[in-house]
Amino acid sequence: MALKHKGLDDFGRVPVSFRDRSPIAFSNQDRIPVLVDGDHWVNDSWEIACYLEDAYPDRPTLFGGEMGRAEALFINAWTQQIQNPGLINIILWDAFQAVDPADRDWWREDREKRYGSLEIYQNGKDEKLVSWRQSLEPMRVTLGEQQYLGGETPAYADYIVFGTIQFARCVGQYDVLEPGDPIRDWCERLLDMFDGFARQAPTVTT
Amino acid sequence: MALKHKGLDDFGRVPVSFRDRSPIAFSNQDRIPVLVDGDHWVNDSWEIACYLEDAYPDRPTLFGGEMGRAEALFINAWTQQIQNPGLINIILWDAFQAVDPADRDWWREDREKRYGSLEIYQNGKDEKLVSWRQSLEPMRVTLGEQQYLGGETPAYADYIVFGTIQFARCVGQYDVLEPGDPIRDWCERLLDMFDGFARQAPTVTT
Repeated sequence: MALKHKGLDDFGRVPVSFRDRSPIAFSNQDRIPVLVDGDHWVNDSWEIACYLEDAYPDRPTLFGGEMGRAEALFINAWTQQIQNPGLINIILWDAFQAVDPADRDWWREDREKRYGSLEIYQNGKDEKLVSWRQSLEPMRVTLGEQQYLGGETPAYADYIVFGTIQFARCVGQYDVLEPGDPIRDWCERLLDMFDGFARQAPTVTT
Repeated sequence: MALKHKGLDDFGRVPVSFRDRSPIAFSNQDRIPVLVDGDHWVNDSWEIACYLEDAYPDRPTLFGGEMGRAEALFINAWTQQIQNPGLINIILWDAFQAVDPADRDWWREDREKRYGSLEIYQNGKDEKLVSWRQSLEPMRVTLGEQQYLGGETPAYADYIVFGTIQFARCVGQYDVLEPGDPIRDWCERLLDMFDGFARQAPTVTT
């Protein structure tokens, strides 16, 4: 979404499987995403956004200046500390079902180190979903006032939160946002952007 | 803090008691704060910040542009929906003790409509404090990376959260932030600003 936002449309994508990180071996680390731009590479979504903003300052802005970037870091932290853990709690089992069978042993071992037994996540999803939706209230209030977290147009802050919901959308087995929720409407607007770019992402049901 | 940030130092302050809103009767509404600037008035902290930013664009910025303003609205919503209710839960009883005795009947009736019996808030403060501190984790993570929510300098976003903690500091009977907490250090930096302006606010113990 950040690449598209910057109008950097001619990028390629290289699949990286969980069990085989050889496509990113050049980076001497094993975390995705990794962005390669000419002879430069950068990993971590936040760092990639910062790199794009700094390397392409004349393209549409992701942060709207240093203060906007600083505030977006809070939204990033909120997403990582509050919003995404709540969502993972709901979709972890579904995510496991969506993993390439050849990756499942790797994935189970890795994820169980962090989250405990995957089987725990089969249950209680409805209650967790209610609680997760409630935790989004600050976003709901904000989107009652403006179209995007970035205001009249999306900012990187929007893509931070959207990325986690897009993940749920692609691997989950039911909608996490209710009809009529302003956050769902916001999500639909982001799915429509860039000629429906995010809508074209493969999902477990397609 | 927003006035000081804008370098608008020559303001006066008019006390408004809970039971008597006659000083703001001209505004045909009863909520404080109300800012009067020449023949213009505006109420609501967020609206006041927006007014100052727009009316004094050549002074130090509170938002850093439209995207920063939009993102600050999320931080405002997070403060109002999550952070401040958690803090009120802890300090409501202390706040009641700090109310001018002549205002107490008014205050009890008004607050009990919103929060239920004030007596409930005498208990469980230690547990509520642990939970409130935990809810600040996104801010703690952010302040691990930068001095202020606004980055290297404070933004209105900082003053939003600070205002609620300053309220607790002035009416509460114990520190809500632990020594060593980056949020406490941030709070101390804000208390030092503008020649210790916020530090000079009267508290129940002074």
